[in-house]
Amino acid sequence: MKEAILKEIQQIIPKNRMLTDLQERYAYSFDASFGEYLPELVVQPQTKEEISEIMKLANKYHFPVYPRGSATSLSGGPLPVEGGVVLDLSQMKKKLIIDKENLLAIVSPGVITGDIHRKAEEAGLFYPPDPSSSQVSTIGGNLLENSSGPKGLKYGTTKEYVIGLEVVTPTGEIIRTGGKTVKNVTGYDLTRLIVGSEGTLGIVTEAILRLIPKPKARKTLMATFPKLTDSGYAITNILSAGILPAAMELMDQACIRAVEHFHPLGLPIDAEAVIIIEVDGHPLAVDEEIKMCQEICSRAGATSVRVARDEKERDEIWKARKMVSPAITKMGPTKISEDATVPRSQIPAMMERLQEIKEKYQLNLVVFGHAGDGNLHPNIITDKRNKEEMKRVEDAVGEIFESAVELGGTLSGEHGIGILKAPYMEMELGKAGMMFMKKIKEAWDPNNILNPGKIFPKPGQTRVVLR
Amino acid sequence: MKEAILKEIQQIIPKNRMLTDLQERYAYSFDASFGEYLPELVVQPQTKEEISEIMKLANKYHFPVYPRGSATSLSGGPLPVEGGVVLDLSQMKKKLIIDKENLLAIVSPGVITGDIHRKAEEAGLFYPPDPSSSQVSTIGGNLLENSSGPKGLKYGTTKEYVIGLEVVTPTGEIIRTGGKTVKNVTGYDLTRLIVGSEGTLGIVTEAILRLIPKPKARKTLMATFPKLTDSGYAITNILSAGILPAAMELMDQACIRAVEHFHPLGLPIDAEAVIIIEVDGHPLAVDEEIKMCQEICSRAGATSVRVARDEKERDEIWKARKMVSPAITKMGPTKISEDATVPRSQIPAMMERLQEIKEKYQLNLVVFGHAGDGNLHPNIITDKRNKEEMKRVEDAVGEIFESAVELGGTLSGEHGIGILKAPYMEMELGKAGMMFMKKIKEAWDPNNILNPGKIFPKPGQTRVVLR
Repeated sequence: MKEAILKEIQQIIPKNRMLTDLQERYAYSFDASFGEYLPELVVQPQTKEEISEIMKLANKYHFPVYPRGSATSLSGGPLPVEGGVVLDLSQMKKKLIIDKENLLAIVSPGVITGDIHRKAEEAGLFYPPDPSSSQVSTIGGNLLENSSGPKGLKYGTTKEYVIGLEVVTPTGEIIRTGGKTVKNVTGYDLTRLIVGSEGTLGIVTEAILRLIPKPKARKTLMATFPKLTDSGYAITNILSAGILPAAMELMDQACIRAVEHFHPLGLPIDAEAVIIIEVDGHPLAVDEEIKMCQEICSRAGATSVRVARDEKERDEIWKARKMVSPAITKMGPTKISEDATVPRSQIPAMMERLQEIKEKYQLNLVVFGHAGDGNLHPNIITDKRNKEEMKRVEDAVGEIFESAVELGGTLSGEHGIGILKAPYMEMELGKAGMMFMKKIKEAWDPNNILNPGKIFPKPGQTRVVLR
Repeated sequence: MKEAILKEIQQIIPKNRMLTDLQERYAYSFDASFGEYLPELVVQPQTKEEISEIMKLANKYHFPVYPRGSATSLSGGPLPVEGGVVLDLSQMKKKLIIDKENLLAIVSPGVITGDIHRKAEEAGLFYPPDPSSSQVSTIGGNLLENSSGPKGLKYGTTKEYVIGLEVVTPTGEIIRTGGKTVKNVTGYDLTRLIVGSEGTLGIVTEAILRLIPKPKARKTLMATFPKLTDSGYAITNILSAGILPAAMELMDQACIRAVEHFHPLGLPIDAEAVIIIEVDGHPLAVDEEIKMCQEICSRAGATSVRVARDEKERDEIWKARKMVSPAITKMGPTKISEDATVPRSQIPAMMERLQEIKEKYQLNLVVFGHAGDGNLHPNIITDKRNKEEMKRVEDAVGEIFESAVELGGTLSGEHGIGILKAPYMEMELGKAGMMFMKKIKEAWDPNNILNPGKIFPKPGQTRVVLR
């Protein structure tokens, strides 16, 4: 980065919030996916005006800008793939206001999502989106990636809870979208366009989130199925009975074994599937519904159904699910975490495809995920230094995407496209679909300054995992 | 319309679906707002390919195209303000598929929304958005206007239930957005951009709607408040108690009197406000919650609270609310129906402003609306031939918008901007906010072919009601 540009940036951001040393910049070169890209400079803005000035400068000198929260992205969202400047927004965390009367939260982008959960619950309210990373990830990152977690089926995704934004555009304008009302049809819905845009259309500097009353009760069960397909029937039958659980999580055999190996919890390692179901709402309704879920699971072929009797037992059940990521991380140095999503009725078919892919490419593939909303997480554990195996991983990932799309699903349910899935966009969207997305990017960011290299594949880019 | 162009259109649409006679075209010159604009031609396409061809022709010869459903718009959405071709999509209604297993409906744009409600309920499912016009309006119109009705508070708006679209773009490309999964973050959310775009960004030719299990029970009450402000406290206290009603409707004194005058139902004409509350969900929860609502209303100062004991009594309660529109239509030849929306806590303040505006301009103003989500419907009953009064209406409408925005709200909660509110857009969005919406319109519709004259004010346009 030229000295002259650095000097102009220093006019905007004080020196103690500009990181130039190699070791400091290195800390910003990776995220929770893989690949390392060293930025030329990291700045830690604290106001929207600072960000706006940086963006104007970037348009003047044509350097790329990469916004970043806690960098828990699994698709390479914040990676500075073309160098330039990383905007570390994790320090912009002053505001976390709960507006109890209007059922709203007003938050700065660097606020940790888990803190919103806690603050809302203290006020008797509830912010449903709950990505696994919520104790670490920032709300700004959650919004830009639309990362959602297990509650999509009943409560919808992050997007359904964002009703207003303050945004710095790629050219440095400061705009407000939406507002404090759930209903707002004043012009185009820029709020929902920016949420999930992976930081390519704007930088969120403040957000207004919709909260709901906290459910008064919840009950959780874990059911063990000798046969995977039977667990699929159980899930469908529960929904057909008019029950909308807050979560319906599935773990396959490889996943059960990985967890049990990592941290023995007494999980049934011979079972083909374990599902965890949580219902919430009015206490009387919850009691009745969990009983119905229990019966439906048993009738569908579950060999054991355990309902948590208290919060302690609930935590034990969830522990198995929460151990999945640490457990599989221990299985090898590189973890490719996918989020192919299919219509719920296609889950059994998708699980079958995944088993075929696992055998065909002889890979260490484990599957878990949010079965209620069709959002599976096939994870491949590998070693990126093993070039031969990585080639097989590459091919397997391509087949996973193809299967999801063939079954009426999508490349990504919640991790985003980032750099990893860009080459597959056209397969799902077609040329025209891509073109109409790109028209928006080009209209808003004519110099391609903000998070370039994401979502849209480079001409000729076909590789996903290897480069 | 030139003979040569007509001939080319005939190559696309058979003659019996092209309406050229004056009396036929006249039927397409108005909607449920006011103003008349005669189209040069009306066509009734039946396939996406026909629509695509028309759009390509329109771009070749630069004639405007106006998509239209049942034309129940209250903001002038489908009015052919610049002549050209009206696309009557009400005939495109072949598909209404309920996919029970995936909790989805797949629908053609001309399907009546009420038919989706019925079909979903037959399958034990539920499509919550319920605009007052749902027995007449098409789903295509509902989607493009994001018209939602009373259930926004608990269930969200129409937008929250649309997960996939097939769309013909302004330049005639056919694209698919989203899909059959609730979670989908593959690129930008074009689905939610097009929903609520008032037919300026694309013509929906098919939609995938998310359904939920039908609530097992519901209970309804009507509470009478001598003081309007007390009804506001009741609403806030109910929500603070952790109850999320399916509907919370408010009628002011003028509205109560209008209904009672039109069709005597025994409504309390001395009361300043009546609220209708409906809770739904599990039967046991519903019983408890309606009792709590009853108590909270009484404690807040309601002089009477009547809980419907059965469906017949429920229908009677709702009858009062449903009579509002016909009742006020009888009060004068012209009805200006607004939908200014404020954060819920500002409803008492907004009600006060509306009373001041009513007195200041000496107008026949009645207020009702969806109090739970802050979406009020101030209606002015007037006569558009009375120029002097219309000038006062004009000024009053301007003040209503200003008040809504000042109180942290929005110009439009569900009716859309259309032609009537376009001049006020900048007041809410600012120059930059408008500009970033316009960039999208220009990028997608470079020749400004699709529904021109809507959302974006013409340079110098300041008038709302009068032209």
